[in-house]
This record gives sequence, C-alpha cells and structure tokens, in this order.
Amino acid sequence: MNELIKENEDVHSLELNGLQLIQNKDGFRFGIDAVLLSDFAKEIKSNSTVLDLCSGNGIISVLLSAKLQNPSITAVEIQPDVADLAKRNVIFNRLEKSITVICDNLNNLDKSFTRSSFDAIVCNPPYKKLNSGIVNDIDTKTIARHEVYCTLDDVVKISSFLLKPTSSLYMIHRPDRLCDIISVLRKYHLEPKQMRLVQPYANKAPNLLLIKAVKNANPFLDVMNNLIVYKDNGEYTEEILKIYNYN
Amino acid sequence: MNELIKENEDVHSLELNGLQLIQNKDGFRFGIDAVLLSDFAKEIKSNSTVLDLCSGNGIISVLLSAKLQNPSITAVEIQPDVADLAKRNVIFNRLEKSITVICDNLNNLDKSFTRSSFDAIVCNPPYKKLNSGIVNDIDTKTIARHEVYCTLDDVVKISSFLLKPTSSLYMIHRPDRLCDIISVLRKYHLEPKQMRLVQPYANKAPNLLLIKAVKNANPFLDVMNNLIVYKDNGEYTEEILKIYNYN
Repeated sequence: MNELIKENEDVHSLELNGLQLIQNKDGFRFGIDAVLLSDFAKEIKSNSTVLDLCSGNGIISVLLSAKLQNPSITAVEIQPDVADLAKRNVIFNRLEKSITVICDNLNNLDKSFTRSSFDAIVCNPPYKKLNSGIVNDIDTKTIARHEVYCTLDDVVKISSFLLKPTSSLYMIHRPDRLCDIISVLRKYHLEPKQMRLVQPYANKAPNLLLIKAVKNANPFLDVMNNLIVYKDNGEYTEEILKIYNYN
Repeated sequence: MNELIKENEDVHSLELNGLQLIQNKDGFRFGIDAVLLSDFAKEIKSNSTVLDLCSGNGIISVLLSAKLQNPSITAVEIQPDVADLAKRNVIFNRLEKSITVICDNLNNLDKSFTRSSFDAIVCNPPYKKLNSGIVNDIDTKTIARHEVYCTLDDVVKISSFLLKPTSSLYMIHRPDRLCDIISVLRKYHLEPKQMRLVQPYANKAPNLLLIKAVKNANPFLDVMNNLIVYKDNGEYTEEILKIYNYN
C-alpha cells in the first residue's frame, strides 16, 4: 500500500481498529476537533447514510467508519488534491465499502442528490469569516480555515435540503460564532438540540463548540457540561483519553 | 425600622455593606441567580441610569446599589404586593437616593420613559414558557417563574427601546432557552457579546446562563469558562465564595 503515500506525506496511527491516516506534512493536519466531532456523532444509528461535508483528508469519515455500525458515508471535499488524499485514505484503510469520496462544491450537491437523501450529516467547516483574520494568499490551509468556498450559511442550507425529516446535523465550530450558528440553523429549520463547549483547561474559556441540530424539531437545547481537554498538570483528562482510545 | 417588616416576612443578611433583605417566608425568595446577575453586571459604569426589570422584592437593585458607583436605579415589578415589598426594602436599607420602585407592566414603560433612557438594563425574568411545566393556579411564585405577564420577547423588545445606543442588557436565564434568547436578542438588535454558563458541579450540566447583549454591536460572542458553584465535597468553590463575599 506504500504506493498510496506520496512524497511530503506521512502516516499517523488513529489508535482505533488499526486505522491510519495519510497526511500532507505541510498541509492541513487533523486535530482534536475531528476526533471530538466523530465522538459526538457516534450515536448515529446503524446502517445510516451519512454525509461528511468539508471532509478534508477524510479523517472524520475514517473515524466514523469504525465508530458506527455498517455506515454508508459520502465525504465531500472541494479541493482536488485534498479529495485525492481522502480517496487514498479510504483505499489505504480498505474502507471502499463504507466511504465514497466526492470532489465537488457542496453548493452543487442539490444536483447530485435528491432532497432528504441522508440520515445524518457531519461537518467540520472553515471556522473564520473571510473578512476576519489575516489572509495573505489563498492556499490549502486557508481554504480549510476560512470561508473562502463555503460559508456557514451554505453548509446549513444544503444540510437542511439533504437531511431526512427529524434527522441530525452534527457540527464543530468556534464559540465566538455561536450566535451566527444558532441564527443560521433556525433560518433553515434545523433546531439546535444539544450543545457541548470544549475548554482547553478548567480555568480557560472554551475554544470549540459541538452542536447537534435536528430538522424540524421543537426548541429546547440540552447544554451538556463542558468538556475539559487538559488537567492542570498538562496531561489529558480521563474523558479525553477515553475519546482518543488511549486508555 | 421594624414596622417595615410584616407578619410572615423575615430578614436575610446580604453580607455586603450591612445590607439586608425583607422576604416573604412563603413567597418567591431570592436565590443564587440574583447574586450571580448582580455580580455579572458590576462592570456597569459609575453614575449610570440602570433599569431592573422583573425586580421582584428588589434583591438585584439592592445588591447593585452597593456594587456600582453612584447608580440611579429604577426597579420595575408588576405585582403590587411584591412591588410594595421592594419599596420597603429600599427604605429598610436607606437606599431612597439610589433606587426607585415602580409597580407597572414592563410593556407600558414606553409610555413612562422616552427612547434611550437607560445606560444599562438588568433582568432576571421568568424562565419558563407558560405552556411548559405544571401551572395549577396563578400565584406570586408562578408569576415569578412562568411567562404569565411578560415573555422573553416583551423583555427584550422594551429593553431595546429603552437602552441608549451601544448600551447593555444583562440577563440571567436557563441554558435550555439559549436559542430563543439569541434569536430574540438579535430580532431587537441587541447582539450577544458575552456569555457565561453556570454548572452546579464540574460534572453536571449547566442550569443557569448569564448573557450580556449590546445594542447595535457587531457579532462576536465571548464565551467565558463555566462558573462552577460547588466543589465535589459540596462546599462552595472559591469563585462563588468571592461572589457571595463570604471570604
């Protein structure tokens, strides 16, 4: 399988069913957000059709393939070289029966799929507005982090179209965008039903936000206790160790 | 001053500048939410005109009178007997120069005050929708807890009218209403700028929500680290002891 690994790429063990991930050494590398989102979405029922939007190198689809029972996952990535990497990660892990990678702009998905095609959608979208932060040149990492090709509105709009009634969108994002997130979800009739904030330390402000929204649901938000990543001594907390399968 | 205390009422020390609160033994008694909200709002600048909506027995106005520099506070309570109790609390603590109590429906305040009359508004509103939970008979406690006489929409609408441009509304509410809160605040051009969730214990879900919204501000929410009320051994955390002035 080594022919799947290109120059300037390395392989990272995912500590889960022997899964491994090929990554570009200089490109966008998966972080804790992908691990947390796949854990947050592990309640997705068996035999579900799952859509992974803004899939990047495929990390979330690969993790979900092990956490879900017999899923049928479609991963969508707009950047051709990144989508190619995701396809190689599927082959590298022999997950061709579980994961299909599509290279497309998610705004076109209403032409590829009919309304209500999916049982669940997961998304780790670009967090930052294009007009915020410093954007020098539009490279792979910038596209992954900033709303260059798709906005929060785009993600939620297509999700609402593609989700079956009463099905869920699972998303990870930044707490500073919470008001935008809630406003846009409600705009497209996806009601936020569960939220969990992630704090790096017990005494630090949260820097990540997990949210589950259900199509056409009634208002009532279950806000979970905050997930703390590190203990004061800098070691992972028990809960994070469990999520990473390190214990 | 004992003639101010009626039968079936008692007096509670507030551990702050010798302040005390008369409360009805069987009525709505102040809780940690009032203490947390007055602490959250203590950044209000000196010499501010402050409006305390749904003031109840006046607990928040009384606490703010000690936490702020030379404030001019107007407390509004719809229930005549509760407003009378708030007035007696003002006299009991000799705060007539700082606090004025009005007995009125907050929906009428656009007739009593001109637009942009206040530098800040604080509100500990009824948390529950009228159609939720069990409401047997409409008594004082029910009115304080359920949206009988005023809804979240009413509170935010009048706040937006009465606040000066770039001034703030400070509110405490329930996390399960977060999406309603954000939606309604934005509807009336009050942008949520700071939020803090309150957890009873580190491993329990939050049950209170502090939120500051600024009139006509740009989107960007500062989500603070969660405030934990009790340590695992059931004692107050250091931060709560400090807020209560117990240490």
